[in-house]
Formats: sequence, C-alpha cells, structure tokens
Amino acid sequence: MKKMAKIKVGILGATGTVGQRFIQLLENHPWFEITEVAASEKSAGQTYEQAVAGRWLQTTPIPANVKKLKVKECKSNLNCTVVFSGLDATVAGEIEAAFADAGYKVFSNAKNHRMDNHVPLMIPEVNASHAPLIKSQKRKGFIVTNPNCTTIGMVMALAPLQKEFGITSVIMTSMQAISGAGYPGVASIDIVDNVIPFIGGEEEKVQTETLKLLGTLEKGKVKPAEITISAHCNRVAVIDGHTETVSFSLKKKPSIEEIKRTFSNYNPLRGLNLPSAPAHPIIVLEEQNRPQPKLDRNLEKGMACVIGRIRKDEVLGYKMVVLSHNTIRGAAGCSILNAELMKAKGFLGE
Amino acid sequence: MKKMAKIKVGILGATGTVGQRFIQLLENHPWFEITEVAASEKSAGQTYEQAVAGRWLQTTPIPANVKKLKVKECKSNLNCTVVFSGLDATVAGEIEAAFADAGYKVFSNAKNHRMDNHVPLMIPEVNASHAPLIKSQKRKGFIVTNPNCTTIGMVMALAPLQKEFGITSVIMTSMQAISGAGYPGVASIDIVDNVIPFIGGEEEKVQTETLKLLGTLEKGKVKPAEITISAHCNRVAVIDGHTETVSFSLKKKPSIEEIKRTFSNYNPLRGLNLPSAPAHPIIVLEEQNRPQPKLDRNLEKGMACVIGRIRKDEVLGYKMVVLSHNTIRGAAGCSILNAELMKAKGFLGE
Amino acid sequence: MKKMAKIKVGILGATGTVGQRFIQLLENHPWFEITEVAASEKSAGQTYEQAVAGRWLQTTPIPANVKKLKVKECKSNLNCTVVFSGLDATVAGEIEAAFADAGYKVFSNAKNHRMDNHVPLMIPEVNASHAPLIKSQKRKGFIVTNPNCTTIGMVMALAPLQKEFGITSVIMTSMQAISGAGYPGVASIDIVDNVIPFIGGEEEKVQTETLKLLGTLEKGKVKPAEITISAHCNRVAVIDGHTETVSFSLKKKPSIEEIKRTFSNYNPLRGLNLPSAPAHPIIVLEEQNRPQPKLDRNLEKGMACVIGRIRKDEVLGYKMVVLSHNTIRGAAGCSILNAELMKAKGFLGE
Amino acid sequence: MKKMAKIKVGILGATGTVGQRFIQLLENHPWFEITEVAASEKSAGQTYEQAVAGRWLQTTPIPANVKKLKVKECKSNLNCTVVFSGLDATVAGEIEAAFADAGYKVFSNAKNHRMDNHVPLMIPEVNASHAPLIKSQKRKGFIVTNPNCTTIGMVMALAPLQKEFGITSVIMTSMQAISGAGYPGVASIDIVDNVIPFIGGEEEKVQTETLKLLGTLEKGKVKPAEITISAHCNRVAVIDGHTETVSFSLKKKPSIEEIKRTFSNYNPLRGLNLPSAPAHPIIVLEEQNRPQPKLDRNLEKGMACVIGRIRKDEVLGYKMVVLSHNTIRGAAGCSILNAELMKAKGFLGE
Repeated sequence: MKKMAKIKVGILGATGTVGQRFIQLLENHPWFEITEVAASEKSAGQTYEQAVAGRWLQTTPIPANVKKLKVKECKSNLNCTVVFSGLDATVAGEIEAAFADAGYKVFSNAKNHRMDNHVPLMIPEVNASHAPLIKSQKRKGFIVTNPNCTTIGMVMALAPLQKEFGITSVIMTSMQAISGAGYPGVASIDIVDNVIPFIGGEEEKVQTETLKLLGTLEKGKVKPAEITISAHCNRVAVIDGHTETVSFSLKKKPSIEEIKRTFSNYNPLRGLNLPSAPAHPIIVLEEQNRPQPKLDRNLEKGMACVIGRIRKDEVLGYKMVVLSHNTIRGAAGCSILNAELMKAKGFLGE
Repeated sequence: MKKMAKIKVGILGATGTVGQRFIQLLENHPWFEITEVAASEKSAGQTYEQAVAGRWLQTTPIPANVKKLKVKECKSNLNCTVVFSGLDATVAGEIEAAFADAGYKVFSNAKNHRMDNHVPLMIPEVNASHAPLIKSQKRKGFIVTNPNCTTIGMVMALAPLQKEFGITSVIMTSMQAISGAGYPGVASIDIVDNVIPFIGGEEEKVQTETLKLLGTLEKGKVKPAEITISAHCNRVAVIDGHTETVSFSLKKKPSIEEIKRTFSNYNPLRGLNLPSAPAHPIIVLEEQNRPQPKLDRNLEKGMACVIGRIRKDEVLGYKMVVLSHNTIRGAAGCSILNAELMKAKGFLGE
Repeated sequence: MKKMAKIKVGILGATGTVGQRFIQLLENHPWFEITEVAASEKSAGQTYEQAVAGRWLQTTPIPANVKKLKVKECKSNLNCTVVFSGLDATVAGEIEAAFADAGYKVFSNAKNHRMDNHVPLMIPEVNASHAPLIKSQKRKGFIVTNPNCTTIGMVMALAPLQKEFGITSVIMTSMQAISGAGYPGVASIDIVDNVIPFIGGEEEKVQTETLKLLGTLEKGKVKPAEITISAHCNRVAVIDGHTETVSFSLKKKPSIEEIKRTFSNYNPLRGLNLPSAPAHPIIVLEEQNRPQPKLDRNLEKGMACVIGRIRKDEVLGYKMVVLSHNTIRGAAGCSILNAELMKAKGFLGE
Repeated sequence: MKKMAKIKVGILGATGTVGQRFIQLLENHPWFEITEVAASEKSAGQTYEQAVAGRWLQTTPIPANVKKLKVKECKSNLNCTVVFSGLDATVAGEIEAAFADAGYKVFSNAKNHRMDNHVPLMIPEVNASHAPLIKSQKRKGFIVTNPNCTTIGMVMALAPLQKEFGITSVIMTSMQAISGAGYPGVASIDIVDNVIPFIGGEEEKVQTETLKLLGTLEKGKVKPAEITISAHCNRVAVIDGHTETVSFSLKKKPSIEEIKRTFSNYNPLRGLNLPSAPAHPIIVLEEQNRPQPKLDRNLEKGMACVIGRIRKDEVLGYKMVVLSHNTIRGAAGCSILNAELMKAKGFLGE
C-alpha cells in the first residue's frame, strides 16, 4: 500500500504559546507535517530550539523534527501549502492576508479576520456548512478562522440546542484560565488569591462570534442567528480550562432528559474520520459537582465540550455548566480540526 | 461623664472560624464585652488559648482578655445577656433555641432558624424593619439571624434597586472564597488549579433567603418579595471575598447613572451611629476591572458591598459585578451589626 | 508464542489516593492484573465504581475492568498472590502482616514496616541488593516496602554519588506537593498564599530511611550508611512533585561535569526490561531554572528523578535541585517497580 | 508646644511597586512628608492618581495628599531634602548618584550602590554602626542602601547569633514571594502549581551582602564578616513574605534555649523611638508549624523577623525557619527605618 505524502504545513507565530501548542498537537499527525516555523524578526535565523530556549512551556518535549528547523520570518515564501497562525492580533491581520493572497491555505487563531464577510468562522462540529464561504475570497489561497476560546466551549453546547429546540437568549458567566492570556499574560500578583472580573474585548467577542457561528449560510453570506446573548467574563487562578455557567431559554420546552440525550447523541463529524475529532464531542457528566477544569479538561485529549449540572433555571428556563480546554479545543486544536475538515471536503487540493 | 457598662456577650462555637472572627471583630468593641466563650465538650475546661492552640487562623493575635477565658459548654447558664452563634448547622438549631428560651438574645450565623416565621433574617441596611418580628417569638429571649454569605453581598446591592425601581428577575453566578466553607473546609487538592461548580444547598439559600430579606412585614408576617432568582454557585481559589456577576431586570428603566447614584446615596443607617456600620455601605468603583477580592474586600473594614461594571445587559437589561467579604460582612460582621441595631432600637434592654 | 497468564494482584486501601494511583498505573500492565480491590468495611460490598463515586481524583477514568469489581474487606482471603498496599498507617501494620503471614507477597507504601530488620526498604535503582532480606521473614509470604515520597527523590540522586564518590553529609530542604498528604489532606485555607514549614514525622523519615536505603546487606542484615543528614520539610501550593534543594559533601572531589556524567550514566536496571522502569532513571537538566514540578514531574511517565542546577556549594562542596513525582515515583509507581524487580529475581513464584 | 516642621521627602520610581509601598508606609508619618513624586518621562506631567490609574496595587487607597501631586521626572531639582528610591536597577545607579551629588540624602532600595565602599548597606537593628561611612562619600549629599529582601530576613536573625556566639557557616533555602519580583514580575502561568528553583542574581546577593552587613567598620572601611554562606533561592506561589530554612554552625555551643533568649532580648534600637522600629524586631514562635507567611508576615506591621522551629541540625549544629515581609521589612520599610535612624543620629540636618 502506498503511503500518501503528508501535507507540508508551516506555523506562524511558532514561538508563542499558541504556536507551541500547534507544534505539540501536530507531532506525529497522520496528514500534516511541519516543514516551516516562522516568527518575529528577532527569532529568525535561529533553530527552533534556540529560539524558544527557556520559553518552551509544554509538558512534553519539543518534537525532534521541529527542534532543528530554522526559524524564518513570517513572509509568504515558506515551503508549505498550509499555514497555521498563532500570531498576535497586532500583526496577524496583514500577515495572514498576505499568505492567503500568495496562495497559502491559512488556518488562523487570531481575531482579525473572524468577522470578515467571506471568512468562515468555524468549529467543525458546529458549522462545517460555512466552509464554502472561502470560494468568495478574492485570494489565491484562503483564510479560515476559529473563534475565541471562550466562545468555542459555549457554542459547542449551544449548537445542538439551537438545532433541536431553537435558542432565544443566553446569559453566560465565564471563569477563564490564565493560559488564555498568552505568555507572560496575567501577572501572578494579579491572580493568586484573586478574581479579575474583566477581560478586554472578551464579552463582545462571545456576543458577536456566537451569532455568526450559529448563523446560516444563505446566498453566499452568513445570516446571523437571532439570539440575545449576555456575557460576563472573569479570570480565575486555573491553568487550563474555561468553566462557564450558562442560563438559556429555548423556543421548545424539552425535558432535562431530552436535552441530555440531544447532547450525548450529537456528533455531526461521525464517519469523517478526522484524526483530531473527538469520539464524543459533547460529554455529559452526571456527578453534581462536575465538570471541573482540573479533572475534566483533558477528556477526549482536550477536544471535548464537557457539560454538567443541566437543570431548570428559574428565570430563563434552563441552566448548565460548560467546560472546555481553552488552548486545545479553544485554540490550536480547533484550528487543526478545521484544516482536517477542509481536507476531507477537498479544499486542500488533490 | 459616666461611662456606660458594656453589655456582656458570649460566643457560641468560639473555636471555629466564625467564632474566631466574632472574637477578632469584638476586640475593643465600645458596646459589647466578651465574658464567655463556649464550644464543644472536648474544648470545655481549657482556656481559650489552649483550646485553639495551632488552630487560631486570624492574622491578628487572640485578644488578651479572651485568651485566658475558660471555655464552657454551650449550655444556657453563661454569664452574659447576648450570645453570638458561630455554631455549625448540625447543632445550632437546638442550642440556639435553648438559649433564646432561657432569655438570651441570640444573634446567629447558622442557617437553622433563618426561614422561621418569627425569626428576623436581617441585614440592617436592608430590612431593619423586620426587627419587630422578634416580639412574636414565644421565648423569654429571642433569635435574630443573618443570611448566608453569598446572599448578603447580592442583597445589599439589590435592596436599593428594589426600593427605587422594582426588581423582576435576577441571574447570579458566584465565585466564592474558600474561607466560606469553614475549617478544614475545601481540600487544597480540590481547589488549586480548579473551580468547583457546586456548593451544596447554596443556590437554594440564595434563591429563598433573598425573597424574605426583600419582603415586607405585614401584619406580623414577612411577605416575600416577588422576584424570580436563579443562582449558579462556584468555589474558586480565593481566600476571602465572594465575587458575583449579577444580571437583573427592573420594572422602571433607569439610566446607568441613576443606578450608580442610587447605590452611592444608599445609607439607611446614617445617623444611628452603630459602631460597626460602614460609612458607605455600597461603594461603586469606576475602574473597568474592579471590584477584585484581593484589592477590595477590606474596604470599610470588610463591611462594604463593592460594586463595579454596572452596564446594560443584553438579555435582562442590566448587569454588574458585586463583591463582599464573606467572613466579615457575610458572617460575623453582619451578626454584630444586627446586635448593634437591636440595641439602638431598644431591644437589648435599657 | 504462548502468552503468559498474568499475575493476580489485589489492592489494599483501593479507594484512597495511593490506591487509586495503583489502579491507574496498573491499567494494561503486561505482568499484573487486578483481580481484587479491598478497602474499609464501609466500602465493602459495593462495586469499586460505587465506592469511589465522587472521590475518584485521577485525570483518567477508572479502568473498565476495575469499575465493576466488588470491593472486599482487607482480609487475607483474596483471590490473588500479590497485594499492593495503599493503606493508611493507622491500620497498615497489622493488615499487611496478616497478608504476609497468609502467604501473600505484599508491596507496601505505608511506613509501618519500613524499618523492620527483615523487611527490604527498597528502590530498585538504589538497593535491589537488599531483596534477599525477605528470606529471613518468618512468614509464608513477605513484605517489601518503599520509602517515604520525600526520601525517594533525594535517595535516587544520592545513590550514584554514594557509589562513586562517597557521601559524608547532606542538608536538604523540601518543597512538597499537597497530594503527598492524601485526601482530604491539607486544607486549602492553610496553603493558598502560604508555606507550611513543617510536616509531622517527615524529617525523621528522611533522615532514617536514607541510611537504610544506602546501607549494605551484610550477613543478612542491613548495615546503615554512615552519612549525616539534615532535612527541612515544607509544604507548598503545588499539586504533584516534590522539589528539593540539596547541599552535600563527598569524600572524593569530582568536578561538576563528573557528577553530571555519573548521574546520566546511572541505570542499574538496564537490561532487566522491567515494564515500569524509566529508560533514564536520572535526568539532568541544563537550563538554569529547572527542574520545575509543573514542567518536569511527568518525565519518564513520572518515574524519573530530575536534577538541575548542579553547582559548587560554599559550605558543603556541592549543591543541586532534585525533583520527583511524589505519587508516582514516590509512592505507587515505586511499589510496582519493586514488584516487577521481585518477579524478575524470581521471588514471585514459578 | 511648637510642632516641628516635617522633613520634605521625594519618592523616586513612585509609580512602581516599591514606590507605592513607600507612599503607603509614609502616610501620616510623624517626621516625613511626601512633597514630590518622580517617575519615568512617560508618567511625568500627570497627577499621581492619573499616573497609577489601574496600577495602584496596595489594599489601602492612595493617600489624599499624594493623589494630586504632579509627577516629576527623576531629576535633581525636586523640592525636598530626602529621597527614597524605588527605582529599577537599570536606571537607579546614575540617578541616585546625581541626586546625592546635588545634595539630597538618598535612601535606596536598588542594588546598584549596595557594595560601594563608601555606601552603608544597612539594617538599623544590624549595623547602625556603619552609618558614619557616608562621611567618606565625595558628594554634597549621600546614599544609604538597604539589602536585598531575601538577605534582610536572614541577617536580622544572624546578627544576634554572630554577636553572641560567632557564626562559621550558613546554608539557607528561600521560598520567596511573588511580590519580590516587582510588577508584572512573575507570570502566573509560571508559578501556579509550581516552584521556580532559580532567581537571577539572588543567591550571589545573599552570599555577598550578608558579609558586608555583619562586617565591622574599621578605619573607615567595612571589613566583611568571615562566614561561609550557601544560598538556594526559590520562588513559590505566596503573595508576600519570604520563608527561609536556615542551617548554621556557631563557634560557641549554646543551648536552644539560650538562642531563643538571645533572639527575644535582641533590640538594639530600644530607646531611640524611631517611628517605624518594631517593638520586637525578632519574634520567636513556639508552635511547631510556624512561622507561616500568610499568618505571620504582618506581625509588627510587617517589620519583624519571625523565627520558629529552632532546633538541632544534624550537620551544622543548628537549624530554624525565618520569615520576613519582603516588601515592607525587606524593602520600603527598611529604607524608611534607615532614614529614621540617620535623622536620630543627626545626619539629616539640624
């Protein structure tokens, strides 16, 4: 049997925290092979190992094949066809556009292009149907984005509810992990023995991205969902895993058991055999004190949306607790799954 | 000028965390003097200092006059007229009733009698008007209770809103401090790098106690407020201070500025000169990332309700962040203020 | 090729934290198969899943084959030949003795029998030579113990130094993880924003166990090593992984490079193919700010002793930082490795 | 009785963490009055309140008289005679020298001039006798420095031992608070659930500064003490308060009781009535699990050296645990006490 050649991929922002996660998660990937790592001018020219010396923050070692790669600048002459972008929002917009213009398939974790009309803002389990949007991009390549880490967990839970029962309103309070702020991110003196009840721009992202994600593609445009959403975003002293309390109202009035069943049965990627797709994208826990980030964030290798405490809400009708791993499911892992989906749909060529 | 004799008070559950706070907060109190400390059988007979050896968890030393007091059992033959109860709910119900029957004025922090028809559940700034309920208690003395620590912060914020604008519904998510669970309370292995999205019985307490607190005394009975309330209660790795996100809807539609003004002007205890009453019971912070428990819990010596981020809520109309110190304002401090109020109203005798 | 039947093993104290680790680490073990789980009377009769409901604290699920096992009492009529004991010291002494008397091979994590004259206190990489001590036990079976979790990391580092250069004195300060205290263990209110500079009995264990471990088996008895040891033991807010600063003096005066080489080459189990033996029992890190528990405790699946900052000490000659995973290498993992060694040496029968 | 005019003081680096502490600790100081606050160019021109907006990290509000002060640049034309420097080491050296040259009395917390031959490195309780060194500075004003925060706690404990019994060697392991790294300082992702066993330059500072502090002034020069010192410096997740384990050997062989007595009696500033001097500079705790940073760092308003667990050390003879508040006693508080001492000795004029 002939072994297929792997698709060559590059990592933009390879030395940062999201970039490191891309490298960690792509180790031994069956379809993708990292051939390029790119970062800022000051890292360029060093080997990857040198460039992240003392700043490799993953708990597994740097993959052997990446260690010795020469770090390049983020210019669109890299030897690869796909790029994953973990770039900071201050530079991501222009660099990603330049890569897409030059023909690269760009999978971005940055916020810059998320709300662009022609760019899919995508979670494969939620809105794979938006993928064809890329055809309307006036570029040789294309850009696909994934949502903010706080949005992802909540929307994975909302998607089956929207489909089955119709959602009218949502009030969400997040308790977000410090890893979501990048590195160095949150100062320790600000978060030990503390809660910070504000994260710049986060509530707006949750409130707008959700509507695009749950919207429908009509005549080449995404029509946003008609849901009223309120978000309270907080930072807490958790390393990984965003926990969210969610109160919501539905058009239909299902029982709690029907909601649980809907969650447990939800798996629109079943049969696609995407390497990073979780066997169970939504896991419902029955213990009354779960999910907890420390115990449950790594379920399905960090790719699951874990839900617990589904019960009646006195005001909106229903409430629950939602947990997802913010730097795997909520960032690099979602981007990789987006790329796998695009390959399965034939958008990555051959 | 003749100096008044101080009122003799006893502390029930004196060796526990709430008991310790009572002792700390009553040091040098102008009206009350601790003459008795009572605890379980196994502490009885020792001096207070011996009984709490290695378990005094306050950051100020044991007050000199309490150190050498002999710990008694919680029996109603103590040399005092007022008792503050920091007893555990497993024993508080009967012991407090026995003390009240024997003529003591009991100020309790326990949940047992809070919802009794004849017992005021009281926060002086919220419902001092409920004080006369004690007259209908068929006891020689009486019991006055203060609410659960999570309820207190929220209700201090809701009280002026209810009065001025009328509240229809509230959705609250708490991020509660570990000190709220007593000692030893939450295991460290359960909370470091974690959030626990469940606290037994807490959501129910918030949802029921609030209605009694905001209710009106009519014909010797408390008519509960007609508000719909939903609570999500979580434990986070904060030492002291409960942070709460609160979305709420009002009958009237005030501007954000009117709400802030209402909070800042609220001070129904003004003029009573109660020693533990904060000069400003509600403090509104304008910085977008406040209140924070580490920075703001000790405002007004821990007796304030601190509010920030008052803004429009897309679903219910308004939202905000509320912080209060759970073991001062939310427990011992509220009890002491209740006792001060009762004295000012003449209910502690001459 | 005929597949060997696995050895049947039972777990004593199966519901506790050490017991849970045994179960987690023995999942899919090539030589051992859990056939029995035993715990206190109050768990007995339930399935394992029921017995640990809400208290399974591992981040991987309960192994399927253990879930449904009926929990038995810790009586020596279990269907297995080997038992691993995660029993609490209050009961471990007698129960383990009873099992050994009844013919079971007992591998214990408890302190009770560690210093018994006829019981090997063993770390396979350190003193496999003590194994024959079991022959002098007047029991049908035998007991083998592993040391205290704080001792293990330090002694793995000291063993090659003792062998190559001779040690004369050691001063060690530990910064120990909360998981070392079992469950519920350390109260969160005691350790968040804090250090506890005392752990009952710990310094004595380190100071005595080390001498037995580094001692020599002469005429059927262990002659303790002649080293002077001083330990300062502290608890810090780390979940897993004991970090230790170690100053030491040697008889010979090797260079820092010779010490590093000695560490890196050390691997007395090489060739034995013990399933749980780390490929590199001692890992030397060169970064100046390593090892760190969060980043390095899981090296070699938690079975390594990780050493950094090896440098001159102004007082004793040499100093370094040592890290090891306290609940894997320092507890259940060491016990399992002891059992594997005993099997390789033919002490488990056939 | 005529009230003395207060001495006008300026704060250099006023917006940083040490600068903020100076401002907090000098509120209502009986001798000093802040008339100037100076910081970097980018803060200059704003009011102090504006300049620290969102970055005032103390738990008490900005003192009213400082709020409205205009922030100046760090140039030697300030309206004051004394300056306290909380400047960063990257700029402190030159700026402090310029101020001293211009006639200001400079009390610095920065490392730059600490080891200068003519600059006292001073802790009033340890080596007030070094004060006259300033006379040999060829400047119109002078510079006095205080040691590194880690050195201070240890040396306050060593000083009476050196005087009474003579010290020969010391091995110290620190567990240092995050506030010692300034702001933003340690990234939260680096310290939650972690220990960092390295702090750049810290061990060297402890090992050299200690010898100067315990040295003797002979013929206008400090003769360093002849003690061998080894330091292991670690960062842990504590907010304030450095905990240190200290093993030491003495020339004389006092009993543990004699050492305790020596500590408790030590108070060389007795009678000087310095406003910030603690009544008891060294506090000995008898509980076996103390001192703990959370419980004991604020003893004597954060100005005490708190010692516990004094006992025999198997290697060096004696060992103990030492705690001090790193940003009060270990930084701003020590600087202020130095200034008070210099005033009491007549070095601040009239």
